[in-house]
Parts: sequence; C-alpha cells; structure tokens
Amino acid sequence: MDFFSYRDHTLMCEEVPVREIAKQAGTPVYIYSAKTATEHVARIQEAFAPIDPLICFSMKANSNHTLLTRLLAQGVGCDVVSGGELFRALKAGCSPDKIVFAGVSKTDGEIETALKTGILMFNVESIAELENIDKIAGELGTPGRVALRLNPDVDPETHRYITTGKLENKFGIDMKVAAAVLDDWHFKNVSFVGFHLHIGSQITQTKPYAESITKTLALIEHARNKNHPVEYLNVGGGFGINYFGNEARTMPEYAEVIVPLLKDQGLKILFEPGRFIVGNAGILVTEALYIKESGAKRFVMCDAGMTDLMRPSLYQAYHKIWPVTSPIEFDSIADPEQDPRLVLTDVVGPICESGDFFAQDRRIPLVSRGDLLSVFSAGAYGFTMSSTYNSHPRPAEVLVEGSEWNVVRNRETYEDLIRDEVI
Amino acid sequence: MDFFSYRDHTLMCEEVPVREIAKQAGTPVYIYSAKTATEHVARIQEAFAPIDPLICFSMKANSNHTLLTRLLAQGVGCDVVSGGELFRALKAGCSPDKIVFAGVSKTDGEIETALKTGILMFNVESIAELENIDKIAGELGTPGRVALRLNPDVDPETHRYITTGKLENKFGIDMKVAAAVLDDWHFKNVSFVGFHLHIGSQITQTKPYAESITKTLALIEHARNKNHPVEYLNVGGGFGINYFGNEARTMPEYAEVIVPLLKDQGLKILFEPGRFIVGNAGILVTEALYIKESGAKRFVMCDAGMTDLMRPSLYQAYHKIWPVTSPIEFDSIADPEQDPRLVLTDVVGPICESGDFFAQDRRIPLVSRGDLLSVFSAGAYGFTMSSTYNSHPRPAEVLVEGSEWNVVRNRETYEDLIRDEVI
Repeated sequence: MDFFSYRDHTLMCEEVPVREIAKQAGTPVYIYSAKTATEHVARIQEAFAPIDPLICFSMKANSNHTLLTRLLAQGVGCDVVSGGELFRALKAGCSPDKIVFAGVSKTDGEIETALKTGILMFNVESIAELENIDKIAGELGTPGRVALRLNPDVDPETHRYITTGKLENKFGIDMKVAAAVLDDWHFKNVSFVGFHLHIGSQITQTKPYAESITKTLALIEHARNKNHPVEYLNVGGGFGINYFGNEARTMPEYAEVIVPLLKDQGLKILFEPGRFIVGNAGILVTEALYIKESGAKRFVMCDAGMTDLMRPSLYQAYHKIWPVTSPIEFDSIADPEQDPRLVLTDVVGPICESGDFFAQDRRIPLVSRGDLLSVFSAGAYGFTMSSTYNSHPRPAEVLVEGSEWNVVRNRETYEDLIRDEVI
Repeated sequence: MDFFSYRDHTLMCEEVPVREIAKQAGTPVYIYSAKTATEHVARIQEAFAPIDPLICFSMKANSNHTLLTRLLAQGVGCDVVSGGELFRALKAGCSPDKIVFAGVSKTDGEIETALKTGILMFNVESIAELENIDKIAGELGTPGRVALRLNPDVDPETHRYITTGKLENKFGIDMKVAAAVLDDWHFKNVSFVGFHLHIGSQITQTKPYAESITKTLALIEHARNKNHPVEYLNVGGGFGINYFGNEARTMPEYAEVIVPLLKDQGLKILFEPGRFIVGNAGILVTEALYIKESGAKRFVMCDAGMTDLMRPSLYQAYHKIWPVTSPIEFDSIADPEQDPRLVLTDVVGPICESGDFFAQDRRIPLVSRGDLLSVFSAGAYGFTMSSTYNSHPRPAEVLVEGSEWNVVRNRETYEDLIRDEVI
C-alpha cells in the first residue's frame, strides 16, 4: 500500500508531481510519503488493537528526523540499535519510556547513556552483555531493565543476510541458556522484565512468528514458575512488504495468527516494525544520464548508484523501476517478457563497480537521456545504508505531506566529504 | 609488503605500537602506514622505469587527504571518478595535468568543472558521453582531451563485482565501435589523445594485461593509419595484492610482461593503481566487546562492523585478522586447521545484519573481552566504502610516519549524523 500513483502518465507522491520535486531538489533524491508511513502505523494499531501493543519503530530502516517526528505523533516509540539512534530518537522527541535498545555490541558508553536516559529496556543479546549492563548499572547507581533476546532457532525463510533467529546467527540467547540464567538470577542492578524476539527481516509468512512465539510462551511459563514476573513480550519486527506485487501478508493476516496466541497471557506486547512502516513509503528518483548499447545489452546509466541504495548489490534485492513520466502503465503489463513496448535493460549507476546496478536484464519502457526513473519501495534500508564511496555526496531527502513538500535532509556537498579530515 | 610487524608480541605500525594509537584515538580506527604506500609507489616506478609511466593513484581505493599528499609528493597524479574526487585531488594539491577522469555517468556539472580545471584527459566510457563532453566543451569554449575507454572483452579472473572489462559490463566502449568512431571522427571540441583500459580489480595474473594490451595495440595501429596521433595508453590499474599470503604477482613480474609490449610504441603510458599502493598499507583496529558461545560457534562481537569495512559482506572478501597483542605468531601457524592453540571463531560487528561479519569459521587465537584485533589489508576500499548505517558514526583515520602518528580524519560525532538534516 502506498500513496504513489500515476496521474496523466506522470508519477505523483500524494498530491505532488515527482518531476517537480526532482526539478527543484535535483537528483538523486529520496522522496517519502508521510501518509503512506502513518497509514501503515494505523494498520498495525488497528489489526492488533485487541492486544494494544507498543509499536517501537525500527530506526535502522529509516532514521530521518522529520519523518520520525510524524511517526512519534502517532504514539509510536523507537527501537534503537546504537547510541547514534538513541541520540536521534531523543532529538526527535521520543519519550525514553518508549525506547528499547537492541544490538550485539553495545559499548560501555552507549549502555551508560541509555541507563541515564531511563529507556524502557535493553534487549540483551548475550550473557556477557547482561553481566556488563549489570556492572555498569551498579557503578552508576542507576538500575536498568532488561529483556532477554531469545534465539528461537526458527527459519524465517528470507535472505541469509537478514536471517537473525537461527542458532548459527550472532543474535540473541539460546533458549536453554536463557532458562538457566533465569533459574539462577543473581543480577542486582538490572531487573528482568521479559523476552525479545526478532527472527529476521522481510518475512512473508505467518508461520515463523507462530513458531517462535509458541516456543517463547513455554519459556514464559517456566520463568513465571520460577517467580519471575514476566511483564513484556517483544515480538520484534520483520513483517515483509511488497517489492514485486502482492507477496506480503496483510496486518490482519498476521494478527489472525499472533493475537490469539498473546491475548490472554497477561503480557504487554511490543512490536518493532521498520520496513513495514516505511519501505513502500519512499522512492529514489534518479536521472538517466547516458544510454549505451554494449554487446547484447542496453545500459541506462543513472546519476544514482549503489552508494545511494545498496540493496540490489548487497542482497540482489528486487526494486520495481519505472519512468517518472511514461505513457505505458506498469499495471497494464500482463507479461513483461512478451510485451513489445518494453526493452531489455540494465539500470546502472555511476560507481566504478560492476556490482553498481539497480536492475539487470529488466524489461522496462525505453529510457532516453534526461528521463527520470523512480526506484520504488526504497523507503527502508535506503538512505540509512548510503555511503560516500567514489566521493559521491549522499542524496537529499524530501518529505511529502498532501500537497506540501519539503527538503528534510540537504544534499551533501563536496565540503561535507572532507569536513572531518585534518586539512 | 608492509611495515606492520609484531615486536615483543605486540603489533607495530612502522615504529608505533598499534595499541598506543588505539588507546589514545579510540576504536574502531583505521591506521595507515605512509611508508608502505610510498614504498609501493617506488616499486611501480622502479619496475616500469623503462617506459616511465605517469602513475595516477586511484582515489576510490583511499581518498584520505593527508595520505594523498604523501603520494603526490612522489610525483603521482590522480585517477578520479567523480566531481567529489576531483575536488579532493585539487584540494590535496594535485596538478590538473596529472588528473584523469573516468566513470560511466559523469554529470554535466562534473564535466564542466573538469574542463575548466584543465585536467589531462577524460576516460570516456560511451559514445553518448563523448557527444556530451564535446557539446559542453563547445558551449564553454574550452576544448577537452579524451581517451576512449575500451572494453576489450577480457576475463580478469576476479570477483564478478570487480570485473569491468567484459562485454556484459557497463564499462568502456566495444573495440569495434571505438574503431568506427575514430574512422568518422567529427568532434570539434575534444581531441582524441589515446586509449584507456581497466579490466578489473585484484587481478593476480599477468595474462589479462598482455591480452588487453595486445588487442589495444592493434587498434592503435588502426587509429594511426587513420591519421590519429595516438599519444597515450592508459593501462588502468587492478594489480592484485596479498590478502592471504603470496597470491599476488610482484611489480617486476608485471613489468616483465608489460614493458616489452609497450617500450617502443611511441606512447606515453599511464597506470591507475589504487589497491596495490594502499591495500596493505592500512589496518582496521577494533575492540572485542563481548564473547558468546552460541550453538557450535564462538562469536567475538567487535565495535567495528560492515559499516566500517564492507568488503567481507559485499564480496565475501578474506582479510587476515589477528590480535594486536598475541603470544602466538601468525607465521608460526603451519596449518590453522590442526593448530590446537587456535579457536574456531566468527568475528562479527555491532550491526543488526547477519551479513555483518569480518570472518566466519576462522581459526584464530582465543580472544577475550577488551582485546584489540587488527583486520589487515584494509587500506583500500575500507574507509571509502564506509557508511553510517545503524547510525554508527564513521571511524577515525590515523597516519603513521616512522615514529610519528597523527589523526588525519576525526571520528564522526552523533551531531555529524544529523548535520545535513532539517531539524
């Protein structure tokens, strides 16, 4: 679901023509639809109303300040994975008691800041980390709250780089180890408040959730029998979105499986969606600078590349790509392989790597020099993963709200590239 | 070859103990040995003295300002692939007549700046780009010099992401197309000065060079027969380095094959090495924050991750990793699989991705919390590919020169993360 649509053959973001933004803000540019993101939050809230979860937005998906303020206005909290994200969350006005802090390598400094801030809880990834938080909390005289992140050894059936809940992953605590720790809880400066799950990203099945929750409920019973009042269960995120078409599950489909499992358990439920909220809420707009026929291929050379959007190179991820202005409607294509209006194309970037591509052997309308292309579903893990490789300044970010639009992050300059260097 | 060595079981960069730098500058930190880089330049100059090449350092490998000034002092020029790199090259004091500009998607603004700067030449990647440079040069009244980057359709036998000279790659111009363009040269504002080759990166064989140069010499003869005075041949870069041990060729081995081919051709020769100069000149130093045994594995959780050094995630690249202080000498290991002093380890980072690792199933000495690890051969495509994903500020860079060391790029701050955002 999103509020990007073609009107008179030109792409609109909500009520604003994308080409107008590109003209004024330049390319490459990320354009976010606020309404798409907030609508996704509303859908989670609605589907899961029976268990009234706290939604902690996974900031690693998109940490843009202004966009984040719009989500916070819906009562959303933050899932942070670093001191940098904690800093951003607080800057955007997130209440500390709505912040959860995950990540396998929390530094002493990050832990100290989080304790002093009074965040809701740490999602603790290892016993060594638990001991360290306890030690630092003791030294500071500032008690902390911890959830144990479990590694339920469940296969989420997604890309191996975004699989996080199997035993061979670095994340979370083995369930037997967690049980043993609770049996012999001797930490004086941290209180155990519940469990955390996060089994992966872009999960398009309900079964992995059911499986990991069911395993965890058994552990919750065990913990309660040992006199641990288990207050919270953080189910994590990972809800898949549509990159191709309709491969994702809807929130009601997830809720149908998850709500009955959790409804009468006396638990406060947390969710940590990121991609689900913002993935389809953003596009990356790029200009085609050169066209080249090389051997059997037509290359469209764009001004955006892997430095702006890493997912195709890193995960071989698919992103729909379509001209910002096109008489051919995407939805009118029955079979791209057979449609004579489409041309076999590699959409590539300016970076000096063969891995710098957005699409290979993709059939899209004929693109000419100066045309604008939209790379869709780029709102999550887009800008946050960007780099300045090849000394390409990072792109601008624009937020659209109805018929208004604003640059919410300025395009980097050459001076920015060397700002931290000793010249 | 490098000037990193263990003295009394602790790692030295030239004459400075690495642990001292880490203590004062913090971790993660990139540490460069100036002497290693300049020695590599000297080796190229020496081996290729008979053809007296201009070495244009490939800035995408490492664009650190201070390090670059040390290379420029050796008479080296710059291979730039963007306006940002051109900006950096000039800032470091590179003479414009030693700058060559490659890249498949040069923007009009970048071309304009390069023309006004009076760079030595553009490496032109497509006919569309040639037409565009000619047009802009005409509008500006500033003639330009161009080399045609050829796509010689040669397999460099390296990772497919760093293969750039095969027909299915986006780079360069098909040799037949180049011949046809020269036969019918009608560009008024640019002069054709020669050819450019660059067939890939981390090439450890001499054969691909011989093959592509031989193909190009035939085309040079063709061009000269058509009254094109061919002045330059830019052989590109790609010289492989040792990541494992001794897999790379030495400069004399390359020279032995390349020099005889080029010696009496009446050509000014250019090279564009990057990795060869700086790859082994840098290490990334990281602290082990937590140790976790999960299932069959021992995980060492570091404070550096894929955001600092992308190569293991992106290319499954091997980097030697060893404790900064260790009684076990790397060179004393006959067979890591059999050595009982070593422990099967995953060295991973703080980033919330399973792809965030430096090594998987690697046998290294036992690492404890607080130990420093050195990730070797990280001087090329290390910092330049870094990002702030997960809102991790980018690391500091240190340059060692003999017994002196200086921070040459300051560690990013949380404020840096949001500097360009509209708050």
